[in-house]
Amino acid sequence: MPAAKLTLSIDAMGGDNAPDIVIEGLAHAAKDHPGVRFLVHGPKARLEPMLARHPAARAASTLHDVEGIIPMDVKPRQAMRQWKGTSLGNAIASVAAKEADAVVSAGNTGALMAIAMLQLRLVQGIDRPALTASWPTMTGKAVVLDVGANVSANAAQLVEFAIMGEAFHRAVFGSGRPKVGLLNVGSEDEKGHEEIKAAAKLLREANVDLEFAGFIEGDDISKGVVDVVVTDGFTGNIALKTAEGTAKLVSAFLKEALTSSLQSKVGALIASKALRGLKDRMDPRTVNGAVFLGLNGLVVKSHGGTDGKGFAAAVNVAVRMAQSHFRDEVAINLARLTATLAAAQPAPAQEAS
Amino acid sequence: MPAAKLTLSIDAMGGDNAPDIVIEGLAHAAKDHPGVRFLVHGPKARLEPMLARHPAARAASTLHDVEGIIPMDVKPRQAMRQWKGTSLGNAIASVAAKEADAVVSAGNTGALMAIAMLQLRLVQGIDRPALTASWPTMTGKAVVLDVGANVSANAAQLVEFAIMGEAFHRAVFGSGRPKVGLLNVGSEDEKGHEEIKAAAKLLREANVDLEFAGFIEGDDISKGVVDVVVTDGFTGNIALKTAEGTAKLVSAFLKEALTSSLQSKVGALIASKALRGLKDRMDPRTVNGAVFLGLNGLVVKSHGGTDGKGFAAAVNVAVRMAQSHFRDEVAINLARLTATLAAAQPAPAQEAS
Repeated sequence: MPAAKLTLSIDAMGGDNAPDIVIEGLAHAAKDHPGVRFLVHGPKARLEPMLARHPAARAASTLHDVEGIIPMDVKPRQAMRQWKGTSLGNAIASVAAKEADAVVSAGNTGALMAIAMLQLRLVQGIDRPALTASWPTMTGKAVVLDVGANVSANAAQLVEFAIMGEAFHRAVFGSGRPKVGLLNVGSEDEKGHEEIKAAAKLLREANVDLEFAGFIEGDDISKGVVDVVVTDGFTGNIALKTAEGTAKLVSAFLKEALTSSLQSKVGALIASKALRGLKDRMDPRTVNGAVFLGLNGLVVKSHGGTDGKGFAAAVNVAVRMAQSHFRDEVAINLARLTATLAAAQPAPAQEAS
Repeated sequence: MPAAKLTLSIDAMGGDNAPDIVIEGLAHAAKDHPGVRFLVHGPKARLEPMLARHPAARAASTLHDVEGIIPMDVKPRQAMRQWKGTSLGNAIASVAAKEADAVVSAGNTGALMAIAMLQLRLVQGIDRPALTASWPTMTGKAVVLDVGANVSANAAQLVEFAIMGEAFHRAVFGSGRPKVGLLNVGSEDEKGHEEIKAAAKLLREANVDLEFAGFIEGDDISKGVVDVVVTDGFTGNIALKTAEGTAKLVSAFLKEALTSSLQSKVGALIASKALRGLKDRMDPRTVNGAVFLGLNGLVVKSHGGTDGKGFAAAVNVAVRMAQSHFRDEVAINLARLTATLAAAQPAPAQEAS
């Protein structure tokens, strides 16, 4: 797909190894997406010579000189007071000013969310924003949200997450009609807490146009039972990090096993190509790029510890989102939810089916 | 440790492949724990010939004839009304009547918990029971609770879980002074919802004698950062099942990689001993035996789909728990918590440190 006239705003100074990994990422991205422009926010004197080594990225970039940075350990409240004159703050400001279609940063997540909320504001009809992560499964890729923008979510907010996540899956993974599941402790209707039961009822009875598959359990995520996993930010964050930890544990056990004897080392050497393939498949960089949904502007968060290849993956997510009709499609489904909620206001929800 | 005079009550008919796996499990357990007696609840005419094939198990067992069973798909409410005359119900009744020190069942989890609550009642000072799972980590084994007895937990209940989980880790894994962590979305003090913050404050300020390590994140579980992971049953159930799903996903990817070419197959064959070792290490049967804590009697739930070896692991957990001072130690720490909560009743909690 051509990506003409797309402009991305880049925080050059966010992340553990910025600006190096950011510039390397842009070098990859410039090749992958010819025609996309980058507004690169950071100290010009430092970035100029780095960019000079990557002519394609250099040609696609406009440097916006700014000295300040948001430290990785600053608290969101503090970040909101001092964002002006920082690479992160100015990168978001470019989206707020409609100079760019999306912003990509590997910086402090809490600060990014707080400054983005402040500058971009919530989309009308959205009550809470959500952080969305991509998750490899047996059958492809699922998206999980919220993975940490909030610590709780009520029924209507969970339905908003479902609407945004479903449109996200179509935009980023090009699926036709993704299946949506609510993460719960059992698949039977009577399982779970009140908010999740009410959310399931809303998804079935509100006139929202999406494929709702009901409740799913934790092990269903990796099985690929659904394409979109909806949950509150507390549960989603813990599920995501627990999965990351488990994958690392199994990898460490595998490494130990394959280096435990001379014989196992020989076997591993012979199977090394296949094992490298496995490593690539489990590479967290390939699913890098959590998207902060629900704001008037696209915000993509790269993992802070990623490298150039990982940053390029986050840029790729921003390109696909910006090229899609994500916002229009969310708006249509949101209007349906809002109508249902408004109709339910005076009396208990009517059977709409 | 000698296990003289210990009696376990066994539900012979619970589980997907009962009674076969139960009797096989008892054959293993009778060898591992000479001196332990089994009260085996189930249809005598069917069990008698199976037991006859395992002389050690036969010698250690007393059959309690009962025809009824609790189906795997029955709802807890229904199970509570019809437990009499079932293998599961009668197995629990043996513990209630003090004829046995613990009960082991691979049956329906919801029914097991409901009937156990009804017959054994909560320990005085415990507000909610908790289901406890063992979790392999980089450094050994952690216990995680609650993994699904309840769908929520307030601050005091989380502290009760901490007290029970800590004593459980010492009882089952023989650790000296296990570290306890609260599962959260960040390690900083201001992260998370109100109940978890209040629980952290209680664990620091109440005069409870345990090693509290503060908040941990999802990926810290597998790292082995703490020995006891405390969380509500909704989050814990989802974290546990998400980890199981992820481990299966990685194993499936590994298998695909190692069978992807002739060369990788040869490598895998040469490294087969090491790969078998990895498989054993990840074998869910080795951590089988979730314990339902907080009742006046020990209740061990085996995975429904396990085999004889897995059932024996659950029996092993029951033996270790029954041999330990678990209940006395929990009672001591509970009394401290109760005193702190009582002191905090009229006014906000006093600084106790």
